[in-house]
Amino acid sequence: MPKGFPKTNFLNSDVPEVVLNRLPIYLRILNQLQQQQVKVTNSKELATYMTVEPSQIRKDLTYIGRFGLNGKGYSVKTLKNNLQKFLGLDASWNTVLIGGGRLGKSAVDLINQQKNKTFRIAAAFDPSPNMVGKRIMRMRIQNLKDLERTLKTRNIKIGIIATSNNSTQVVANILVNNRINYIINFSGFSPKLPEYVLLKNLDPGLQVESMTYHLRQSRLNKG
Amino acid sequence: MPKGFPKTNFLNSDVPEVVLNRLPIYLRILNQLQQQQVKVTNSKELATYMTVEPSQIRKDLTYIGRFGLNGKGYSVKTLKNNLQKFLGLDASWNTVLIGGGRLGKSAVDLINQQKNKTFRIAAAFDPSPNMVGKRIMRMRIQNLKDLERTLKTRNIKIGIIATSNNSTQVVANILVNNRINYIINFSGFSPKLPEYVLLKNLDPGLQVESMTYHLRQSRLNKG
Repeated sequence: MPKGFPKTNFLNSDVPEVVLNRLPIYLRILNQLQQQQVKVTNSKELATYMTVEPSQIRKDLTYIGRFGLNGKGYSVKTLKNNLQKFLGLDASWNTVLIGGGRLGKSAVDLINQQKNKTFRIAAAFDPSPNMVGKRIMRMRIQNLKDLERTLKTRNIKIGIIATSNNSTQVVANILVNNRINYIINFSGFSPKLPEYVLLKNLDPGLQVESMTYHLRQSRLNKG
Repeated sequence: MPKGFPKTNFLNSDVPEVVLNRLPIYLRILNQLQQQQVKVTNSKELATYMTVEPSQIRKDLTYIGRFGLNGKGYSVKTLKNNLQKFLGLDASWNTVLIGGGRLGKSAVDLINQQKNKTFRIAAAFDPSPNMVGKRIMRMRIQNLKDLERTLKTRNIKIGIIATSNNSTQVVANILVNNRINYIINFSGFSPKLPEYVLLKNLDPGLQVESMTYHLRQSRLNKG
């Protein structure tokens, strides 16, 4: 862990993490409503789309400002635009991809399928010398040793890890040592990182392997 | 919501959800250790790989049984095998894929990249008639109307949704009405479902869009 490193402020954030995690869901509901030509909505209507009470929705939305139409609900367009701004989704953030193999390709696909082009993959690297020089998405895969230079010159904020599990920790350490404190991890290994790093593990396995526990249990209970 | 529907038991599960979600992480650490030819480990060593205290790790592992070697730690192989069995990962579970487009292909890729072949995609469907008859992964994409028959004859337990956001709720309702209570959702919309349904939202957007909030905040604080 680098010493004397400035802490990022996400741990001191005013908005509770559980609220923050709901905001992208609101955004999607508002997109749906907009597609259906709905101009005005309210917490009761929003609640029909999710398992959250209208009172909680009103509370959540006060964090981003006061957009209520004097008891008549919210303007779908205004609320959507403000939510996007609040979440930083109106900007484009430069990322680096580490891992140019099959998982890297899946990661690139998934990132590029996002509607708002918030995450821009600026350069690709791989820890294996065999991969250097190959291409992913028209980008030349570079040697991981050259990562530092790219991070300095390209205003990179986010690292995307899509390596094999036994490279994850090493790659994550390199990113953190180069002051990348936001990491999206598609690999199956969850690296141990300093508290001030914001890590999102997106490997489907990590998420769905507890699902089969419940399936097994329900089968045992029947038998 | 179907009436008089038998509840699945995951809400009554003995193992707290937070513990269950850590078990796949232990499994990956054990895989790493096995690759490094490590035969015996202990809670202190496991704790070096994650942000959980050794005492909590020991407590977590008592849920799956008593595999301690009389104070000498755990056999990596025994613990790994028992964890896999406990999580239901030693079996293969039949799934259906709904959505044969670009997102469906990404979903298939990610599922097939999982090392343990726990999730088997048995059939593919699409809500759009234009997609019916096309192929994904050598499977013929079928009409969603024929889903019921497949679910009855192929012992399907899990539905994988990879449609566009405006089809998610409709497709999820069809799955639940056909007694599929385990849903893996790659689409960007989080459907509202009965409590007894176990839903895992895997859309990267839902997970990473709160990340940019923190980036925006840290930029504002600097400026």
